[in-house]
Amino acid sequence: MVASEVRALFAVASRPEIVSLAGGMPDVSALPMDAVAQTMSELVLQRGPVALQYGGAQGDPGLRERICGVMAMEGIDASPDNVVVTVGSQQALDLVARIFLDPADVVLTEAPTYVTALNVFAAHQAQVVHVPMDDDGLDPQALSETLTRLAAAGRTVKMLYTVPTFQNPAGVTLAGERRGLVVQACRRAGVLVVEDNPYGLLGFDGEPMRALRADAPDDVVYLGSFPKTLAPGLRVGWALAPPAVKDRLVLAAESAMLSHSVFAQLAVDRYLATQPWPEQLKVFRELYRERRDAMLSALAAEMPEDASWTRPAGGFFVWLRLPEGIDTRAMLPRAMLPRAVAARVAYVPGRGFYADGQGRNELRLSYCFPSPARITQGVAPRRDPAPGAGTAGDVRPRPGRPG
Amino acid sequence: MVASEVRALFAVASRPEIVSLAGGMPDVSALPMDAVAQTMSELVLQRGPVALQYGGAQGDPGLRERICGVMAMEGIDASPDNVVVTVGSQQALDLVARIFLDPADVVLTEAPTYVTALNVFAAHQAQVVHVPMDDDGLDPQALSETLTRLAAAGRTVKMLYTVPTFQNPAGVTLAGERRGLVVQACRRAGVLVVEDNPYGLLGFDGEPMRALRADAPDDVVYLGSFPKTLAPGLRVGWALAPPAVKDRLVLAAESAMLSHSVFAQLAVDRYLATQPWPEQLKVFRELYRERRDAMLSALAAEMPEDASWTRPAGGFFVWLRLPEGIDTRAMLPRAMLPRAVAARVAYVPGRGFYADGQGRNELRLSYCFPSPARITQGVAPRRDPAPGAGTAGDVRPRPGRPG
Repeated sequence: MVASEVRALFAVASRPEIVSLAGGMPDVSALPMDAVAQTMSELVLQRGPVALQYGGAQGDPGLRERICGVMAMEGIDASPDNVVVTVGSQQALDLVARIFLDPADVVLTEAPTYVTALNVFAAHQAQVVHVPMDDDGLDPQALSETLTRLAAAGRTVKMLYTVPTFQNPAGVTLAGERRGLVVQACRRAGVLVVEDNPYGLLGFDGEPMRALRADAPDDVVYLGSFPKTLAPGLRVGWALAPPAVKDRLVLAAESAMLSHSVFAQLAVDRYLATQPWPEQLKVFRELYRERRDAMLSALAAEMPEDASWTRPAGGFFVWLRLPEGIDTRAMLPRAMLPRAVAARVAYVPGRGFYADGQGRNELRLSYCFPSPARITQGVAPRRDPAPGAGTAGDVRPRPGRPG
Repeated sequence: MVASEVRALFAVASRPEIVSLAGGMPDVSALPMDAVAQTMSELVLQRGPVALQYGGAQGDPGLRERICGVMAMEGIDASPDNVVVTVGSQQALDLVARIFLDPADVVLTEAPTYVTALNVFAAHQAQVVHVPMDDDGLDPQALSETLTRLAAAGRTVKMLYTVPTFQNPAGVTLAGERRGLVVQACRRAGVLVVEDNPYGLLGFDGEPMRALRADAPDDVVYLGSFPKTLAPGLRVGWALAPPAVKDRLVLAAESAMLSHSVFAQLAVDRYLATQPWPEQLKVFRELYRERRDAMLSALAAEMPEDASWTRPAGGFFVWLRLPEGIDTRAMLPRAMLPRAVAARVAYVPGRGFYADGQGRNELRLSYCFPSPARITQGVAPRRDPAPGAGTAGDVRPRPGRPG
């Protein structure tokens, strides 16, 4: 989908009569606004001259230390010296691409993969080669074969970009026993692993998965962020990188923006220091688990036998495959205005998540933002709206991170 | 100066016994912290679910409209549709460079010019060619000759990067009668003008200068920002560009960061809407005027006859030329530890502001942050510190925007 189509899609999706299963926005209304307001206010009154001033390009040292504590929840043992604070993990990915990618370099990704990562790689004139994925995530055997094939063809593969946990868009998670194999295959081929992990702390069962980075500090650049676990509106993300890469990231960050907002950084740091953030994570997990359940139930009740879909154990997304022959893009968004009135649902068609034209009969369904009742209504759009439905918070002028 | 030297310089400059005339940080302690805190708090309580959510890549529409009002103070008539909000004007410059520059392209700049702009152009492998400047700013005749010479040599000149008003680092302003000539010369040569204007509203005399962009909407990309007129810690800047360029900037911004912090954008918007910001600008102007006066008086009293310096009518900086044969870099920063104890002053040596090795006997003096008494002490470092001096606010772990 080209940008204008995406904009048209989200413009339609923001109409109140439409259930939007399109955007990937976290439900920030679940935050305790009083506590957030107090955090901001105290930060200005107590540390205003620092919070409102310029900061260093690497990011606030106190926040970087706190970030190391967050990553420890996924088994990562890291030094604040190797963390670089960025404008969301999006900027971290862009800076990594800027450092490593030359035109015609190959980037490996899952199939499907995060839309805006494809934009970044295209902007740097790299070529994306997909590696097959199943319900246990990336297939290590297929990864090894792809690396061998590309090496034989004389191609330069610079990195594997992967969202191993609760993937966007497919909602699948790389199985524990595959994690070491994926890293080993890349290490043997001299290929950097870029682990993008925005949803890792939003699992519905048990403890967080162990990050790829936890067991491979020299092979992995880890990208983390607070938009899904706190609030996107502060745009605080980070990269954790081996020291030589980190040094280049700091220089790239300085050239790209001088420094991130010190206020936003210190607000995140203070919120985590003074508020019960682990409890907040539980609130988010329960909220999204309930919505995931509503979506899986509705899909089981409504979808034809030859449709299939993923069953996410965390995160925001279900990936749906409709029968061959159906074009999920043709239904949206140009044709959406007349059809939407009948269908009353918006989603993101599948092809945009691939670099090679796959995904024609596939689509991404987001359950992160609408209420369970609205989700049910959206998946079964022919029913009359339930009384009281239709006021859920999925009405936004334009959601970010649509991919 | 390489990055490690700059870091060493600022590490030394942050010691309390040193008067730092090095960093270009605005004195944000002059802001009414109560009002800032209240603005932040109300924003969360009244618009939390929007302020803490993702936003669009172009920036908040309300803020973009308000930015047009700010630019109107410099004679610019613009539509919010053509404004793109960025992480300071630094990111705007980086995105412009990303869109326009190919390796070996030429960028014209004043001599000297803003250090971190040189970093951006180097990151995009462009070559900087300096155009001479005098006390009335860029010399239009020299600009035309340079354009002719480069065209004859078959070079591709993509843009003129200029800080026409209260320039960083030289403190000079492009005279009104030269402004049209500079734009015309670039228009004739098909060269884009990038007008970087962080200090334009911080003039000490009369009304703001008319921006280059005011009379040349199709030829100029204008970069503006709030760090110097409100607070750097929110990192809100913008580009105003002709529509076709604007479209490409929005796509580049989306790829680079998805969107800037909505919270930071709405905080700026709300502060300007609810607080007496024009009065705040007056406070800043008086503050910096007093410090400029202290620096010019001290220079007149202390400098030898064969030194010369600029007399800024606004902004943050004085440019000082010492007699030939003096190497301002050799005094700093490697040799600074022993010397600093004697000299008790830090500044930025001149060579880093040129791409071609000029500036050996020159240096930049910033008067924006220390108190007048500290400035006097710094320029005449051999005197004993005045009683009570030494506690001015120039002690910071690492100032941003050092260039």
